[in-house]
Amino acid sequence: RPLHPRSYSITLLPGDGIGPEVVSVAKDILSVVGAHEGIEFFYNEMPMGGAALDAVGVPLPEETLAAAKQSDAVLLGAIGGYKWDGNEKPLKPETGLLQLRAGLGVFANLRPATVWPQLVDSSTLKKEVAEGVDLIVIRELTGGIYFGEPRGFGTNDKGEDFGFNTEIYSTFEIDRIARVAFEIARKRQSKLCSVDKANVLEASMLWRKRVNEIASEYSDVQLSHMYVDNAAMQLIRDPRQFDTIVTNNIFGDILSDEASIITGSIGMLPSASVSESGPGLFEPIHGSAPDIAGQDKANPLATVLSAAMLLRYGLGEENAARRIEAAVIETLNKGFRTSDIHSSGMVLVGCKRMGEEVLKSVDSQK
Amino acid sequence: RPLHPRSYSITLLPGDGIGPEVVSVAKDILSVVGAHEGIEFFYNEMPMGGAALDAVGVPLPEETLAAAKQSDAVLLGAIGGYKWDGNEKPLKPETGLLQLRAGLGVFANLRPATVWPQLVDSSTLKKEVAEGVDLIVIRELTGGIYFGEPRGFGTNDKGEDFGFNTEIYSTFEIDRIARVAFEIARKRQSKLCSVDKANVLEASMLWRKRVNEIASEYSDVQLSHMYVDNAAMQLIRDPRQFDTIVTNNIFGDILSDEASIITGSIGMLPSASVSESGPGLFEPIHGSAPDIAGQDKANPLATVLSAAMLLRYGLGEENAARRIEAAVIETLNKGFRTSDIHSSGMVLVGCKRMGEEVLKSVDSQK
Ligand SMILES: CC(C)[C@H](C(=O)O)[C@@H](O)C(=O)O
Ligand SMILES: CC(C)[C@H](C(=O)O)[C@@H](O)C(=O)O
Repeated sequence: RPLHPRSYSITLLPGDGIGPEVVSVAKDILSVVGAHEGIEFFYNEMPMGGAALDAVGVPLPEETLAAAKQSDAVLLGAIGGYKWDGNEKPLKPETGLLQLRAGLGVFANLRPATVWPQLVDSSTLKKEVAEGVDLIVIRELTGGIYFGEPRGFGTNDKGEDFGFNTEIYSTFEIDRIARVAFEIARKRQSKLCSVDKANVLEASMLWRKRVNEIASEYSDVQLSHMYVDNAAMQLIRDPRQFDTIVTNNIFGDILSDEASIITGSIGMLPSASVSESGPGLFEPIHGSAPDIAGQDKANPLATVLSAAMLLRYGLGEENAARRIEAAVIETLNKGFRTSDIHSSGMVLVGCKRMGEEVLKSVDSQK
Repeated sequence: RPLHPRSYSITLLPGDGIGPEVVSVAKDILSVVGAHEGIEFFYNEMPMGGAALDAVGVPLPEETLAAAKQSDAVLLGAIGGYKWDGNEKPLKPETGLLQLRAGLGVFANLRPATVWPQLVDSSTLKKEVAEGVDLIVIRELTGGIYFGEPRGFGTNDKGEDFGFNTEIYSTFEIDRIARVAFEIARKRQSKLCSVDKANVLEASMLWRKRVNEIASEYSDVQLSHMYVDNAAMQLIRDPRQFDTIVTNNIFGDILSDEASIITGSIGMLPSASVSESGPGLFEPIHGSAPDIAGQDKANPLATVLSAAMLLRYGLGEENAARRIEAAVIETLNKGFRTSDIHSSGMVLVGCKRMGEEVLKSVDSQK
């Protein structure tokens, strides 16, 4: 790959609902930022989720996974919708997402929850509690109860049916996610809180033990442990106490969403899912919002900020990432708001227009 | 058992930290309310938790469980403390609690989360979001990943250690907790939200299927389903949307604590754990607060209100339960506050004095 221009192949997975709209905006911004930074992007758009179910009958076609694996990074819009809600598990859009995570081996899910000063009033938390919140949840993404075997259904000796799953973590899985978390904490406020249920679960006991082991490699990072029930409370009581949180797949699913809503603007929140090598997966945390799909009402900023994470964590293009983030801040400062974050006195805009305003801000950057 | 006076035996498990202080207050109030209602209580105080570990080396002595089983209801203070935090699992105070739940077979944990109008400002949620919140989480308490087998530790074929647990639910377990939840919803606003992760977990798929089955027996109750990650968000975004929530053991652990903190006054929140027959277990949701133990600072109202739940759900003594609740409301209305719920203009009192004030209110009732 030549150094000038640096060039990357990006797999675009627009998916369902508002996915195509927001991915289209993010793609345009990526390209323009790339031009400013001397980076060239080659895009490969592939079907996934409900769109893939409709087109070829599976939520993650083999060609889509293969293309994703061969690319430098994957940008996903959103998947799912009422239409496929009743599908059996193998034919659920969500199953495609789980297959994509497993297929790419992206074991570390990075979920920043930042309260934007411009949007602090949209939080349901009191201003004095919400302002200044800037935390990140590192969720283990390819292990635990989501993927643990055995799983399934059976009938017990009393003739009752049962359903079961296995929560399981190996030292290998815990160590690698712990290292990612310590590395990230080190670049932030050097405070890591590991969340588990070690007072009840063996899987959590091993988790806590290994996190304590790995901590010896990171003596500059201040480590604490918290039970998941307490963490769910503390996020509401005093979210500013947290800097970096690391936890397993299912607790991370719950706590990262809880942390998100505290910001009051889930339409603004990006995510990154990365492995040790190989392409990362970048996506907004919001869903496919079928109710407003195709109406140019969606907030594209979560996807735009996911593109920034793609540049930072996926390609190591820090300057380009900062360009996007600065442009988003400037656009908010100018008062542009999609309906989900609109408040009186602000300029209500649609999805496309919001993208155009971010582009203007990119272009006006030195 | 003679009808006049009605008499009940109550097992008191004061436990650790502030447990003895708050149980002592609740006991006095039970007795006085009993006198007003023509009910006689016989108390049997037994060791449990850290106190039992120190005294006899196990967190739930056989005699304690036996006494609890033979009584009409069990009132627990709180268990645990720094001293026993490093203990191995069989010698943790928490293990005693799990053994007590299992031993009594109390599969349904009732966790009301009510925002008291007098205390709405202590919530970190905005007043307009928190006010009027009045929900109850029904948590399955003796099954799921807390008790599922197999569980433990092992080494895989790559030589890595692992820890694992089993999330498992049978139709029998789901049906009975669902029925409890529908019954309770029916006595409230007739809205039941079942929380699961049926898009990923087989145990949750069966959960959802059975809850839908049982719903046919309760056509007057409006049933909805929500994924646990979304529920964690919705509790913060708009908690008033919920009336009755039913969920499994681990999700219930997390969501009931999340719902509690929203009220801003966990020192006020009681809980009840009941079976189909046999004594129920009643306890405040707060912990043992070792930092303030023995200083007469604890808020006894959660335990006092747990005694009210004991009367209502444990003994069917609705009038006596209402007496306690009315007295607590009157005491708050008079402005008495322990330090955890104190605000300017209110009368700061300690644990004992708060108890005395509630007693005064009981005595002044007609
Ligand atoms: C759609 C679902 C399978 C998924 C998950 O639980 O991981 C989603 O909630 C998420 O957090 O990305
Ligand atoms: C102490 C612990 C084992 C317990 C639980 O997880 O059930 C506690 O958190 C609770 O909710 O009563």
